[in-house]
Amino acid sequence: MDKTTADHLTWHSHEVTKLMRSKQKNQQPVLLWFTGLSGAGKSTIANALDYALYERGLHTYLLDGDNVRHGLNKDLSFSDVDRVENIRRIGEAAKLFVDAGLIAISAFISPFRSDRQMVRQFFEPGQFIEVYVSTPLSVCEDRDPKGLYKKARTGVIKHFTGIDSPYEAPEDPEVILNTGEHTIEECISQLLTYLDEKQLLLPPST
Amino acid sequence: MDKTTADHLTWHSHEVTKLMRSKQKNQQPVLLWFTGLSGAGKSTIANALDYALYERGLHTYLLDGDNVRHGLNKDLSFSDVDRVENIRRIGEAAKLFVDAGLIAISAFISPFRSDRQMVRQFFEPGQFIEVYVSTPLSVCEDRDPKGLYKKARTGVIKHFTGIDSPYEAPEDPEVILNTGEHTIEECISQLLTYLDEKQLLLPPST
Repeated sequence: MDKTTADHLTWHSHEVTKLMRSKQKNQQPVLLWFTGLSGAGKSTIANALDYALYERGLHTYLLDGDNVRHGLNKDLSFSDVDRVENIRRIGEAAKLFVDAGLIAISAFISPFRSDRQMVRQFFEPGQFIEVYVSTPLSVCEDRDPKGLYKKARTGVIKHFTGIDSPYEAPEDPEVILNTGEHTIEECISQLLTYLDEKQLLLPPST
Repeated sequence: MDKTTADHLTWHSHEVTKLMRSKQKNQQPVLLWFTGLSGAGKSTIANALDYALYERGLHTYLLDGDNVRHGLNKDLSFSDVDRVENIRRIGEAAKLFVDAGLIAISAFISPFRSDRQMVRQFFEPGQFIEVYVSTPLSVCEDRDPKGLYKKARTGVIKHFTGIDSPYEAPEDPEVILNTGEHTIEECISQLLTYLDEKQLLLPPST
């Protein structure tokens, strides 16, 4: 065995751990998983939270339809099997971001309890924060910002959540927001209060 | 339309951009894509580079078999189609990390030029850095750290890169390393010199 081969084999690996990445960023990595109907305000609040955390000097990343559907998950259809796979991959990607020491935020309808439960189990206890944007269907449908409810009602879109496909509300989410009753600012305030109370905006303790 | 609905619709979105995330971390996001034979030293060097950048206060993340194969890509086999999908997803995930303002590092054999070219095209010019760990097959096979070459030679493993499946060397990689001739420390030094010369370890200019 020559010298350089020996060097390779005896090289002591210095791995950068999740804790080291977190401490470097002076924060605790978590995933805030937004769920709710189309038009409930998930993306709007998730973006606003992302910005609020950024302004506090925290290191975040937002996963949403804009950066996932046309990239990582662009091969997936809207079939039942592919919808599960869509959520699984988002959950696994979010886990990597949390492993990178970031505060990850995701905003997807994710209508099924079993899928959200699957993702929760990817994470250590306390690192998966389910945020239920509970805006009622009637309010979402009145808003219809993308015209999707109209298309679903007229049958142009099939299997639309809330119309001809179920939305299974979380049974025990960490946070419940209602943009039908509260402003975006109030929702962000509620989220920051939750994170503060759980001491999740403090540097890692160990 | 009630007040809160109006609030929702008129809420001005503050999006945190890639540039804002990069500036916050005082660095330029890139992907360092390691490619080479099994046993060439990809993971060892990638980990050592990760650590060296971390020690400089830079924000990185390493994608490798340990955190990808058992998570995001655990549904994939080693069929031809799934091998392409494996690399595609790694590339798309790395793109998200670069979008998050991080210096992403990936260490996968990625034997096919077309796959690596696909990933390169996900990125802006200059943000995909192909690092060819060119350690010769004979050296890799002598090392055989996981005993995989022995299994491939005896037919226990089929379609093993370098034995009965081709490795297509990069034609124009940004960096070429050879752990058969150089120590790990020398390879890291070579990588840091490259990044320094390209001014990639400076804060974003705009």
